[in-house]
Amino acid sequence: MTTLLTNIGLLATQDAGIGELTDAVVVLDGDRIGWVGPASSAPAADDAVDVGGRAVIPGFVDSHAHLVFSGDRATEFAARMSGQPYAAGGIRTTVAATRAASDEVLRANVARLATEMLQAGITTFECKSGYGLDVPTEERALRIASEFTPETTYLGAHVVPADTPRDAYIDLVCGEMLAAVTPHSKYVDVFCEQGAFDGDETRQILNAGIEAGLIPRVHANQLSEGPGVQLAVELGAASADHCTLLSDTDIDALAGSSTVATLLPLAEFSTRAVYPDARRMIDAGVTVALATDCNPGSAYSTSMPLAIALAVRDLRMTPTEAVYAATATGAQALRRDDVGVIAVGKRANLVVLDAQSYIHLAYRPGVPLISQVWQNGRRVV
Amino acid sequence: MTTLLTNIGLLATQDAGIGELTDAVVVLDGDRIGWVGPASSAPAADDAVDVGGRAVIPGFVDSHAHLVFSGDRATEFAARMSGQPYAAGGIRTTVAATRAASDEVLRANVARLATEMLQAGITTFECKSGYGLDVPTEERALRIASEFTPETTYLGAHVVPADTPRDAYIDLVCGEMLAAVTPHSKYVDVFCEQGAFDGDETRQILNAGIEAGLIPRVHANQLSEGPGVQLAVELGAASADHCTLLSDTDIDALAGSSTVATLLPLAEFSTRAVYPDARRMIDAGVTVALATDCNPGSAYSTSMPLAIALAVRDLRMTPTEAVYAATATGAQALRRDDVGVIAVGKRANLVVLDAQSYIHLAYRPGVPLISQVWQNGRRVV
Repeated sequence: MTTLLTNIGLLATQDAGIGELTDAVVVLDGDRIGWVGPASSAPAADDAVDVGGRAVIPGFVDSHAHLVFSGDRATEFAARMSGQPYAAGGIRTTVAATRAASDEVLRANVARLATEMLQAGITTFECKSGYGLDVPTEERALRIASEFTPETTYLGAHVVPADTPRDAYIDLVCGEMLAAVTPHSKYVDVFCEQGAFDGDETRQILNAGIEAGLIPRVHANQLSEGPGVQLAVELGAASADHCTLLSDTDIDALAGSSTVATLLPLAEFSTRAVYPDARRMIDAGVTVALATDCNPGSAYSTSMPLAIALAVRDLRMTPTEAVYAATATGAQALRRDDVGVIAVGKRANLVVLDAQSYIHLAYRPGVPLISQVWQNGRRVV
Repeated sequence: MTTLLTNIGLLATQDAGIGELTDAVVVLDGDRIGWVGPASSAPAADDAVDVGGRAVIPGFVDSHAHLVFSGDRATEFAARMSGQPYAAGGIRTTVAATRAASDEVLRANVARLATEMLQAGITTFECKSGYGLDVPTEERALRIASEFTPETTYLGAHVVPADTPRDAYIDLVCGEMLAAVTPHSKYVDVFCEQGAFDGDETRQILNAGIEAGLIPRVHANQLSEGPGVQLAVELGAASADHCTLLSDTDIDALAGSSTVATLLPLAEFSTRAVYPDARRMIDAGVTVALATDCNPGSAYSTSMPLAIALAVRDLRMTPTEAVYAATATGAQALRRDDVGVIAVGKRANLVVLDAQSYIHLAYRPGVPLISQVWQNGRRVV
């Protein structure tokens, strides 16, 4: 089964070889891209869909999200917006609700947010644990997450739970809990931050995960300058996430590495925090990705379009850089080479925008511009 | 025909007498609200709609929008976001496209954006002219706008067009153009700003409009401190709009007046400008409204939900204040007493949110939360 998408106003492939094309067509061949090129030389296909001159981009790749939880922290949000600072301890509210929730409740929450993500144009997403903080709930979280996405991240090291001594908890995270979650996990992640885990603890936990075959990623330098970024680079992490407060040494380390700096402006938006300086990073040669950080505490949003608009306004990325960061480098942050670009052989994951250009994602902030979403060759929105 | 909205999780009426109710019902009686109160004492109705525990608020009132135009300024936006400042002169690009457009093109543009507004929960909107800047196009703009809303504003004094000498243009705005648009206009507005119109010119134009029976409003203190706010108060304007740069004297003038300060954070968002300080204004007793400023140059968005989220994050309003400003005081900025609140006798304009509380409009930024929209007693979204 092949499907021809025709009458594409602007095709922004995010592929260096193809670049941006006007008056282009894309052929979907099963779950893959079969052909990309000018309308004038398009091959025949079983079916054709006229997208009416709209712009087409790859489906967004959201490489950082926390979707396995129960409950809501709207009241905490309203209080914070009236002047109280964000503290990592707020995570514990969600931990209590998540531990108490059944598998069905947790599954329904992931399903609801995965649907929201599709409607926001996200066709590939990562999902972390980290609201269990005990062996059974972390295991449940990753088992349920893996029903929805292969990009599952073990974040037992989110914070130390109130009911477990610190040393004992770190032993658990590196031992019994790790063993329980490994069958359902692709990555290991640590919240390396004051109030969460320090540099030595982070190194110990990531190394345990690496030993178990997981790929490291790090919540690094969100609320303070710390060792997170340099540890991420040292251990070959796929991604260092947040990166709001970086020294020149951090920037140099990232620029010389294969570690992606994943920026999460919806978190700074929702915590009224300082935004990361993407301009400085990109100018220094750092590879930058954008992700939602969707979670109930500090960024309860699945809106990659708003993340892009914020990246342009407040992180000083160009619209072109922001869309690239939400697609091609999002894939790089997940070590995926089959998504995030529109090119022959890649997964047929596409977003048709209700606009002539992807610039409108930033130019028309807050306006729902996701007109169609195709995932693995099937139209899902 | 009466319709009962039942199973409302939180009803935020924006009416001081009723306040916020849980487990409330609303009866729509024709195009008006017939009854509001606890579910336990609800009257009978012809029909019932279960809103599933969702929050209900009044339809948003958008008191500042520029919808009669043709063309798009995405390229200018992308350039500005790469470092070029916003200048009022960019308006002239849209003027050329608007003059060249047929009535049908202009009507289709307003219709498209009015539909977008409904989908964003806006059930009452104002619409300005100001992209014609000649007699026939200003007249066409207001005639077409009045097909969609009674809240039409003559903004011939947007900028001086390149093809007319300054003094001659001001004479035109106060004379022949005013006479042509008055049958289709409720308000007169002036862009009082460096590069647009100074204080004396603003006073002259507003007085001419008042003489013709129009209600004054002013684009005031957007890009620089100027005489706009104090002129607005002096002339009894319904609203002083933008108010990003205010002196203590400006604040005092507003606080002692019936002039609403209408804040337009989507404009500061899209021009990377400093946000107005709503906290300072509210604490000083100023009545603050929120509006979209939807226009193709400096704020191409119909998203009142994003305006609310920005008001909370960057203007330091509480979620409660922001929703009030987008409904009840929006109505006040249009001198309307039949919209913006949910109370008996008011228009049956309601938004059902896909959330338990209106807090989620700020807590879940960018997420489409408009579940149902009722306008004049009919479900339209």
